[in-house]
Amino acid sequence: MTRPLSLNPDRLFPSDPTQRDIARRLYAEVAELPIISPHGHTDPSWFAGNAAFGNAAELLLHPDHYVFRMLYSQGVPLDALGIRNKAADPRESWRLFAQNYHLFRGTPSRMWMDWVFAEAFGIDVQFEAATSDLYYDLITEKLATDAFRPRALFDRYRIEVIATTESPIDTLKHHAVIRAANASGEWGGRVITAYRPDPVVDPEFEGFRSNLQRLSELSGEDALSYAGYLAAHRKRRAFFAEMGATSTDHGHPTAATADLTAAEAEALFARITGDQVSAADAELFRAHMLTVMAGMSLDDGLVMQIHPGAFRNHNPWLFDQYGRDKGADIPTSTDYVHALRPLLGKYGNEAGLTIILFTLDETSYARELAPLAGHYPALKLGPAWWFHDSPEGMRRFRNQVTETAGFYNTVGFNDDTRAFLSIPARHDVARRIDCGFLAQLVAEHRMEEWEAAELAADLSYNLAKAAYKL
Amino acid sequence: MTRPLSLNPDRLFPSDPTQRDIARRLYAEVAELPIISPHGHTDPSWFAGNAAFGNAAELLLHPDHYVFRMLYSQGVPLDALGIRNKAADPRESWRLFAQNYHLFRGTPSRMWMDWVFAEAFGIDVQFEAATSDLYYDLITEKLATDAFRPRALFDRYRIEVIATTESPIDTLKHHAVIRAANASGEWGGRVITAYRPDPVVDPEFEGFRSNLQRLSELSGEDALSYAGYLAAHRKRRAFFAEMGATSTDHGHPTAATADLTAAEAEALFARITGDQVSAADAELFRAHMLTVMAGMSLDDGLVMQIHPGAFRNHNPWLFDQYGRDKGADIPTSTDYVHALRPLLGKYGNEAGLTIILFTLDETSYARELAPLAGHYPALKLGPAWWFHDSPEGMRRFRNQVTETAGFYNTVGFNDDTRAFLSIPARHDVARRIDCGFLAQLVAEHRMEEWEAAELAADLSYNLAKAAYKL
Amino acid sequence: MTRPLSLNPDRLFPSDPTQRDIARRLYAEVAELPIISPHGHTDPSWFAGNAAFGNAAELLLHPDHYVFRMLYSQGVPLDALGIRNKAADPRESWRLFAQNYHLFRGTPSRMWMDWVFAEAFGIDVQFEAATSDLYYDLITEKLATDAFRPRALFDRYRIEVIATTESPIDTLKHHAVIRAANASGEWGGRVITAYRPDPVVDPEFEGFRSNLQRLSELSGEDALSYAGYLAAHRKRRAFFAEMGATSTDHGHPTAATADLTAAEAEALFARITGDQVSAADAELFRAHMLTVMAGMSLDDGLVMQIHPGAFRNHNPWLFDQYGRDKGADIPTSTDYVHALRPLLGKYGNEAGLTIILFTLDETSYARELAPLAGHYPALKLGPAWWFHDSPEGMRRFRNQVTETAGFYNTVGFNDDTRAFLSIPARHDVARRIDCGFLAQLVAEHRMEEWEAAELAADLSYNLAKAAYKL
Repeated sequence: MTRPLSLNPDRLFPSDPTQRDIARRLYAEVAELPIISPHGHTDPSWFAGNAAFGNAAELLLHPDHYVFRMLYSQGVPLDALGIRNKAADPRESWRLFAQNYHLFRGTPSRMWMDWVFAEAFGIDVQFEAATSDLYYDLITEKLATDAFRPRALFDRYRIEVIATTESPIDTLKHHAVIRAANASGEWGGRVITAYRPDPVVDPEFEGFRSNLQRLSELSGEDALSYAGYLAAHRKRRAFFAEMGATSTDHGHPTAATADLTAAEAEALFARITGDQVSAADAELFRAHMLTVMAGMSLDDGLVMQIHPGAFRNHNPWLFDQYGRDKGADIPTSTDYVHALRPLLGKYGNEAGLTIILFTLDETSYARELAPLAGHYPALKLGPAWWFHDSPEGMRRFRNQVTETAGFYNTVGFNDDTRAFLSIPARHDVARRIDCGFLAQLVAEHRMEEWEAAELAADLSYNLAKAAYKL
Repeated sequence: MTRPLSLNPDRLFPSDPTQRDIARRLYAEVAELPIISPHGHTDPSWFAGNAAFGNAAELLLHPDHYVFRMLYSQGVPLDALGIRNKAADPRESWRLFAQNYHLFRGTPSRMWMDWVFAEAFGIDVQFEAATSDLYYDLITEKLATDAFRPRALFDRYRIEVIATTESPIDTLKHHAVIRAANASGEWGGRVITAYRPDPVVDPEFEGFRSNLQRLSELSGEDALSYAGYLAAHRKRRAFFAEMGATSTDHGHPTAATADLTAAEAEALFARITGDQVSAADAELFRAHMLTVMAGMSLDDGLVMQIHPGAFRNHNPWLFDQYGRDKGADIPTSTDYVHALRPLLGKYGNEAGLTIILFTLDETSYARELAPLAGHYPALKLGPAWWFHDSPEGMRRFRNQVTETAGFYNTVGFNDDTRAFLSIPARHDVARRIDCGFLAQLVAEHRMEEWEAAELAADLSYNLAKAAYKL
Repeated sequence: MTRPLSLNPDRLFPSDPTQRDIARRLYAEVAELPIISPHGHTDPSWFAGNAAFGNAAELLLHPDHYVFRMLYSQGVPLDALGIRNKAADPRESWRLFAQNYHLFRGTPSRMWMDWVFAEAFGIDVQFEAATSDLYYDLITEKLATDAFRPRALFDRYRIEVIATTESPIDTLKHHAVIRAANASGEWGGRVITAYRPDPVVDPEFEGFRSNLQRLSELSGEDALSYAGYLAAHRKRRAFFAEMGATSTDHGHPTAATADLTAAEAEALFARITGDQVSAADAELFRAHMLTVMAGMSLDDGLVMQIHPGAFRNHNPWLFDQYGRDKGADIPTSTDYVHALRPLLGKYGNEAGLTIILFTLDETSYARELAPLAGHYPALKLGPAWWFHDSPEGMRRFRNQVTETAGFYNTVGFNDDTRAFLSIPARHDVARRIDCGFLAQLVAEHRMEEWEAAELAADLSYNLAKAAYKL
């Protein structure tokens, strides 16, 4: 006996009838707005090649570390789930997911998945052990159809623009294909890149030195001298901008910034390109480069995103066996007030510069980030992010940030995902939660409903478009 | 076309009908209670001279760093707002405020301002670009009338007592004028001072050494010797108490306290009054003086307020151009458990001593402050403060503090403002939020309604009066 | 005139009617489930000897540091309450409690006490000064009856199993008596111990060296050599397991772990058993022993509990006068991500090992603990604990943990109390709060009601039973 699956039209709205009525009205006005996805990790080759996705496990299980980390935490081996194990039968892996679907109760993954099942694939029974094969077959079958190829899904979900993330040593060949398709009229989807220089900015990144050599080749500059290194960045940034990029993206372990003199910077660069790099030098170089990158953003207009605070690869055995991005990155306590002062002291008063800050340490919302963003013209706050991209996390963000930063020092929602079909699911959750938050303000007579309606559209669409210059 | 402005009588109450009904009943009993304002920064010259305020911008924009920091964060230049710029046309500055009033949606400033507009000035259209001049003219006109002079407003809003904050090197001449007016029957308003010794306790304060010289003159003691310095404090505290003070106020960067021997203290004093003061010595002297001040409070009965945790003047360019208190103070992570131990180890068990602690780091509410205040007889907690003096901030405070400290280790509300007309607005917000919080406890059957009614009066009036000995 | 006392059947449920209806239905299914109490501090001699409790103050005031710390914080002397003062008249102490009962408004103690008064003793008037003697007499009288002896109360409240906590140098003689009573059929109550080795693991514990000598005697190993020390632990763990223990319990000041080589460990052991122990060595030894204990748990199957983060005995005068556990332990900011890495790097991937983590620093819920427990197979999260074992604290726990760890990486509720009659009261609060939290998820259409019903039983009963192997 199976159980019915359907998406309640009032899901995620407050249950208080006054608030729910207001939330419904606000949401009705924004539900169909196009999606602006200014920060994420989808694979540009999908949109370049437009090849069909393979099967249910390949689309929904293998790329989603939110999903397999939870299964792993309850003792399901990654090998059995097909993570880095081609020998695993995807149908069997999918069954393990189905048998353990109760583990996701109360989590955002559950909401995103149910949305994908019901909305994207039109399935009307719940996902559980008994329906595992039915799901697997139905999804896999649909994926083979043209309507489920990447470009068709992009269009179906009204994605106005999506940004992927590439390193300076990426040739952006997939983006070139997409832009050619745009130019020829073959496909109209707007897919842009973002400049993520961590592999050539972080001396502790795997292959840092060979990354610099590759950077030299691609830029025609000697990226192993400090002057050439800066010139190479400028050239690659300009190339990325030509390919549509409007932003850069910096994923540092801490928010440390520094403002070294030219001589100090040159000496430091010599040390961090040498044979032995100390942890202190690596940190100082990353810190210095954030300030340098802010300066380049002031020059070339690229919006700067900073998201510090993850302890990467916390599980050494897992990292050895399965590599990075397998659910073992853990947030840490993060200071912003002292860390950002060198950068903000230099560039924070520039109204023409946009720096978007993210955090994995929610204690900084009310204490540090909202006060900083509510003062410095250059600073805005990214949305609740990664671990906190949940209904509760989004409510905590609004609850703690709004009093001091207001809504207009935030930049709307972004999905930050590599799970393609979760994009519309995530934006839908964010819009519903924001409408619910606004509904409470209206119900408590702290705002007029027409103001909330304006804000709902701003939070769903306008703010992201403006902040990211899209 | 203008939009109507009115204050909904149910504003800030929970929208759940059960809770709202209870909140209404609780609030009705406390709405008209007099205002106890035991901690704030109004200017005593207002009440001494009773001169009319100049115009709308001068009253409501220029002194309110909550307002102009938000405008600045969105790119509005401070010069254009008339901050330290006499050349700015106040009507034009006011227009910039009006055009950007949407930035304040969801913030407490919006609620306070609307209260001032509707309640104090009787305006019935919303504030926006189209009504900017109407507002400016109407407010400026009313300010010229006797009913809007400081003493009349003080009486109109049932302020029972207000404390200002002065440094030990202030002569309190305005307070003397007010007390003479009290004595002669010219005016009955009770305006008292509070002893804020930071300028002569913090070796890093601007003009520290010359402040000590001035302290010597005013006290007749040699404040450049340690013994004379302590004697000068005692004399000035006694003078402040004569002028009505019931409390002292200490705004340190951290909560560090120390308990040095007489010899250590004397040697440290010699160093911090010398030519070069190290950061460590400055911090140690501030720490030591908190303990010394607690000892003096035990002797002379002045209630001691400590509010640490702001990184002052975070924006160096702004500080150079516009000076302090321009919205660039940012809270930092603050430890209390280790920091306060020297002081609490010495005086924490004194039931006759009252130390009121504030924080800008809300993570300490449940973890450190409520456990400390729920144990030490000398310790009580100040309300949600500064950045957190918002509906959400007040709810977080009650939510996180009450379980361990109860209500009776807190001291009611204080407004902490230099924006005079926001005082009744802020107290009204606090009373409404507290009534809403109590209503939830009643609605969840955790408390009887008669108990909530007692508490509503305690939180609105009695606790502040008792804690501050007013 | 007295006021009526009764427990509202809807207490602690959300007041929103939709949520309340769901919460009622969920709670009805779990209200009568047996109590699993896998972590607490009741005295095994109660169940061994089954002697009657003495009087109201002795049962409800003297052992409850939640209660007397609040009274002390408001200036009531501990001597007058009979804390370590046999000269105090218990009836007079009880009157002080009654006169100050309003201090507990809004605290969990108030809810637990009212439950005990109304449910356990059947009292129908509220506790206040006027009813103090009535309460004292009635409670004291009932305590003299057989129905209020420890074993009868154990049975009355459907306690399926209770764990006490003993040190390795405890002989467990009371547990032996209880087990004999079980075996003979005299009494069926299941009372087990838990292995809490702090007195022989923490070099800074009072009497550490003599504790090691006692450990040698009890184990027949030379616990003053490192090899003998480890062997002694293994033997005592095995003995505790024979006496029913299924878990160990580690109450360290921080969460620091270390993984020393055998040679390093041996050298460290020599130092910490020497005459002078440095703070750094003491911390390193505690850190190392957590990893050692995890290894032993992998071998012998005992579940490992770690609860760091209390600054013990913060009040030196109070410690001198009244000793430990008098309400002066204060939580501190606690890092888990870096601190636990040595242990988790070594054993975190063991699906056969269960480590249950507690925290007094709620900032770690969403930032560190849920991400760690949502990844490592060996890790689960204990419930909101100690200071945070309140309705608000439990809601914060679910709100912040569920998004990333789900429900199934948590282990249900435990009461952690030495106040015997508060056990059923506390479990009732926890069940009500969890049902309310689940009701919100159902009301917001994030979960089906049948799933919530399954979860309500899991959170109330099944998860604790499974996690603790009971």
